[in-house]
Order: sequence, then C-alpha cells, then structure tokens
Amino acid sequence: MTDRIFNFNPGPAVLPLPVLQEIQAELLNYKGSGMSIMEVSHRSKWFDDVLNDAVARTRRLLNLSDRFRVLFLQGGASMQFPMVAMNLALPGKPLDYVDTGTWSTKAIKEAQILGKDVRVVAGSKDREYTYIPETVPVNPDASYLHITSNNTIRGTQWKRFPETGGVPLVSDMSSDILSRVFDPEPFGLIYAGAQKNAGPAGVTLVILREDMLERVPADLPTMFRYTTYAEKNSLFNTPPCFAIYVVGLVLKWLEETVGGVAAMEDINRRKADLLYACIDETDFYRGTASPESRSAMNVTFRLPTPELEQKFIEEATRAGLGGLKGHRSVGGCRASIYNAMPLEGVEALVHFMKDFEKKNG
Amino acid sequence: MTDRIFNFNPGPAVLPLPVLQEIQAELLNYKGSGMSIMEVSHRSKWFDDVLNDAVARTRRLLNLSDRFRVLFLQGGASMQFPMVAMNLALPGKPLDYVDTGTWSTKAIKEAQILGKDVRVVAGSKDREYTYIPETVPVNPDASYLHITSNNTIRGTQWKRFPETGGVPLVSDMSSDILSRVFDPEPFGLIYAGAQKNAGPAGVTLVILREDMLERVPADLPTMFRYTTYAEKNSLFNTPPCFAIYVVGLVLKWLEETVGGVAAMEDINRRKADLLYACIDETDFYRGTASPESRSAMNVTFRLPTPELEQKFIEEATRAGLGGLKGHRSVGGCRASIYNAMPLEGVEALVHFMKDFEKKNG
Repeated sequence: MTDRIFNFNPGPAVLPLPVLQEIQAELLNYKGSGMSIMEVSHRSKWFDDVLNDAVARTRRLLNLSDRFRVLFLQGGASMQFPMVAMNLALPGKPLDYVDTGTWSTKAIKEAQILGKDVRVVAGSKDREYTYIPETVPVNPDASYLHITSNNTIRGTQWKRFPETGGVPLVSDMSSDILSRVFDPEPFGLIYAGAQKNAGPAGVTLVILREDMLERVPADLPTMFRYTTYAEKNSLFNTPPCFAIYVVGLVLKWLEETVGGVAAMEDINRRKADLLYACIDETDFYRGTASPESRSAMNVTFRLPTPELEQKFIEEATRAGLGGLKGHRSVGGCRASIYNAMPLEGVEALVHFMKDFEKKNG
Repeated sequence: MTDRIFNFNPGPAVLPLPVLQEIQAELLNYKGSGMSIMEVSHRSKWFDDVLNDAVARTRRLLNLSDRFRVLFLQGGASMQFPMVAMNLALPGKPLDYVDTGTWSTKAIKEAQILGKDVRVVAGSKDREYTYIPETVPVNPDASYLHITSNNTIRGTQWKRFPETGGVPLVSDMSSDILSRVFDPEPFGLIYAGAQKNAGPAGVTLVILREDMLERVPADLPTMFRYTTYAEKNSLFNTPPCFAIYVVGLVLKWLEETVGGVAAMEDINRRKADLLYACIDETDFYRGTASPESRSAMNVTFRLPTPELEQKFIEEATRAGLGGLKGHRSVGGCRASIYNAMPLEGVEALVHFMKDFEKKNG
C-alpha cells in the first residue's frame, strides 16, 4: 500500500489498514447476507451480532465490571456536553468542572446554558492551558466532577485522574480512550467521539455506571435520556450502523492483533517517547505543553518561526506525512499519534524532522 | 453480482449498487489523498468538496430556492421530534400536528414532553392509521403544522400536502424524500433520516427555510439549535463524514444516472403500480392501506392466514427476496420499494407472489 500516507490528523484520524481492508472486502455482501452492512436491518441478526460484539469487546478491553453499560450515541462529544448536565445533575448539588482548555470550556458553557449550578474547581487558563492542574479540590457536595482526559489542541493529558472521595468522575475521553490502561470504577460516565482512537466520525461511545441511570430525569425528551439507550441496547431508533460496525472492527484489531490496551499503551509510549526525544534534543523544535502534562496522543510543538512552520508542514505533506498543522486556534505543529498510527509512521516523522532541521536549522 | 439479494428492508435499506462499488473502489485512498474518506479531516478540501457537493445536489434535486438551507445533523428523525418543537415554537402559538401513526405519534409525544401547547388537528387513529385524512383544518394561529409525509409501518402516504394559509408546514419525510416531485415553498422545515431513500443510517437531512432561523431561542444548548448548523455549514463539530459522503454518492446517482426526481418518480410509480396490481388481482393478497392513501414506498399487505404469511416470508427469503416481514407492531407483509430498488426487483417479487399463490391459494 505504498500509495497511502502517514496520517497525523487529529480526528477524523488514521484507521488500522487491516480494518479498512476488511470493510472493503465485504462491502457489497456482508457475511453472506447478500447485502452491504449499510443495507441490513438494525434489527437483523447480522447487526445484532455487530453491536453485541462491539459492546463485549469494549467491556473486555476496558476491563469494565457488570456495573457499566456500553452505549452508542450520535452527535459527538459536543452533544454529550449538554446531555451529561441534563442527565446527571442532582438537585442542590453543584456540577464541578476542571477547565483544561477548549473542550472542557465548551462542556462548562453548555452546563451553564442549561442554568445549572456550575463550579469551575480547577484549571490551567492562567498559563494558556499548557498544563494539567496537579491538585483538584475534593468537594463531597458535587453531583460529579467533569474532566477532559486529553486536550487534543494543547497536547496535554491527565497522567493520574483526580481523587474525588466518591463523587463520580465524568470524563470526555474522545482523544485517548483505549490508548492506555485505567481503573474505570471511579467513573460515573465516560464519553468519546469515535473518530480519534475508536473508529470513524458519526458515533459516540458512552460508558455509564449503572447508578447514574437513577439520576436521569423522567421529563427529558426521549432522545436526551441515557435511560432510553440503556433500556434498548442503543436500539431505541436506528443507530449509526456502519460507524458502529467500523468501531467493532477497530476493537477487534486492538484486541486480537495488537493484544489489548496494555500492549497498545506500550506502543503508544514508545511512539511518544521517540517524538518528544526528537523535540527535546535541540532548540530548533520546542514542545508547547508542560513536560509533566505532555500528551501521548497529540504532540504539539513549534519551530523557530511561523514561516519555518509553514515550510515544515508543506514539505512534510510532500514527503507523505500528512495532518501536521496545529489547530487553527493555536497555530504551530501537531502530530496526532493515536492507536492506529504505527511506530513506523513516527520513525518516518522523526527522520524527516532531523533532516529538516539539518537543512533549515 | 448474482450473490446480492433484492432487499425490501424498510430502512436501513437497499443502496444503489454503483454507489457501493464506488465506495469500495476508493475506500483505501480517496481521490489521491492517500487516506480513506473516513480518515480525512472534516476541515480538509476533500471533505469540503463532499459536503458542498451534497448540499448543491440536494438543492438542485429538490428545486430549493435560495431561501432554503440544507443541513446534515445526527440522531435520526427521532432527534428532530424534540428539536423541531424546541426551535420552531412561537410564544402563544400552538403546535399543530396531524397524527397518521407511529412516527407522527412520537413527534407529538416529544413536543408534549417539552410542555408545548400541542394540538392534534387531524388524524387517522379511528381506523388504525390505514388512511391519510382528506381535510386538515386551517389554523392561522399555529406555530406550524407538522405531518409525516409517508408512514413506513402502515404503508400510507400524503398525495397532496394540506393547505395551511401561510402557516409553515413541517414534515418528517424520512421515508419518501427524493422519491417524487413536490413544491418546497410551503415548508418551513423538512427532515429525513437518510437510511431509506438518501443513504446509510447515521445522518439526518434537515432542510430549513431561512425565516425559521429567526425563531430559534438563543438559550438552547448549542447542539440543539438549528442556527448552530446553519451558521457553520453543518461543521460546528465533526459531522458524520462517511454517511454524508455516501449520501452525496446517492444524490449523484439520482441526478446523473436516474436523471432526477421526476424520472425517479416515474420509475417509483411503475414499481408501485405493478405491485398493487398484483395484490388487487385476487383475494389471496389483501392491501392494508386505504387505496387512495397507498404509499409508493412501503407496500403493506396480508395473506389469508398468519401461517401463510410466515411461509411466504421464509420462501421469499430463500428465493433472494429479503426484508418482506411487516413491522413487528402490525404484522403481515411489507415490501419497501425505495428509490434504489430496481424495477427488476419488483418484477421478481410479483413473479414470486403469483407463483406462491398458485401453490398455496
């Protein structure tokens, strides 16, 4: 497949090549059904198997106990911002948020639009969101504590999740779910748009601890209630079937080919170490996130001048290294090295970076 | 492609074979990008072209004036039930609905959950939703009049849309959009889950007349406001890129291969006439919808006994005619003959039906 590039896009992002090949091979006739997976009924045995397999693999990969439900929703993380607040707020108990940048900030804004009692209990706005706060106050009176586990734009990531003294953690894990091992038990709810580590755009993974369902107000519109999805195994209405099918294939690849999340975490660590070492080696490249908060998923860095950055991105693109432009809100460069980015891609990038520095440093 | 069946599923439903073949051919490398269409950025020129082409084709195919916006949302028609009421209700002006069965009934329920002043101004519950009401009262004080243009479950379809005296029509057209020519001007909003006539599950087409945007309350959560999608060309957050891409290919097929909606309507009429003629020919098959309200998309019928119906569905499946079981809420048989069902499929079904009657009648 020499015509494919190394794709460092922040999301939608690279998918495992074997997954794409499997989709391609069975696109006109899914497992002898005589139909594409896009054409089978969401209430058929074919799709039932797809859905149940994706749920079971998520449970195994994330080591979820029976207390957790795995749901597939639509609308992306942005739709979860209001849904979390609408569903999980308890009367008289404030909603606590940590503000580590863009996505946290948006989650906070949506809870405020709903008129909820929102408390921003920690954050990193003071230094342009370049770090993750070391301590977060424990507030036993909170409905939940919301964090964004990884900030794709600033390239920061929580290394240890905050202690909450029993208050449920809620996390947007869109950009690092399935990339590392963590204990799910303190989490009341985890949500993740699939288009970074888990599949294509168009489906959102929602992992819900069963006790959260008791909080869901009965007077919300049906599609806004987590109970609707939990009671019907995500099949209240037609789900985004194809996107769930692709997520299932990505999960199968992660489980059977990579060997699980711990094995993936090792590879991800090697990729990130290699890239950060290249950045730290000289003064030509400069990482933008505080070293102790650096993301293993999104590696953000600057070059000496914006002109050099543009040249870097252009020449990298020509060399088959795509998607290295930083987010439009912050500029600079960013290499997103999600699960499906192979080590060879990062090696090629490091090789290119050293070469570019030699010629332009 | 002898290994593909004729797929009469009600949705997700059959897609045009050339569309599936094009997806398959470019799945690993979209137009020289070196990436799958699932892997390109939603802010790239590749996806921009996909999105703008889908919007432009929708405008041309439906003959939409400049007053209309074409948006792509997530969550299916079920998500539009509350969104329509939240966005388009005017203070002091009731929301009028016609109740022609399941989907209308659900739309009404969601508006009621929101505490809106809902008026059911006409309906067909009295005869088990087997017909479309002939007259609908004109209520100039209404915020809008909501109808479901085609009932997939009962097999009924509006032949002429009601006169409203300037009150905007709002219609769920999930199961017949793009299947026939109609005048869009009286419509304030049209919505359609793509998975019947327009593409795969996972994206909802929303066509909005510009004056409706002025009604949108500013205090709704961002993702619940139509203005959010209108202002950002459906790119406020990551859209369901792959589903939009497939919709674009289906629209291209409809425009360039079929020759547009009028040509499609002719074919659909021939398909429906052929099938209803077969049903009416003898007493063995019995259509369930009132003849004047029969749907050209979903043809519902019964056989003399439930046992014969089960045998019919089983033998048809073995003969390569799939998805003929009626909705679980009403039983019987149903052939969904959306745009992508070729005339040959209906001919094969009719041939099978005559043969089955001979052997079992």
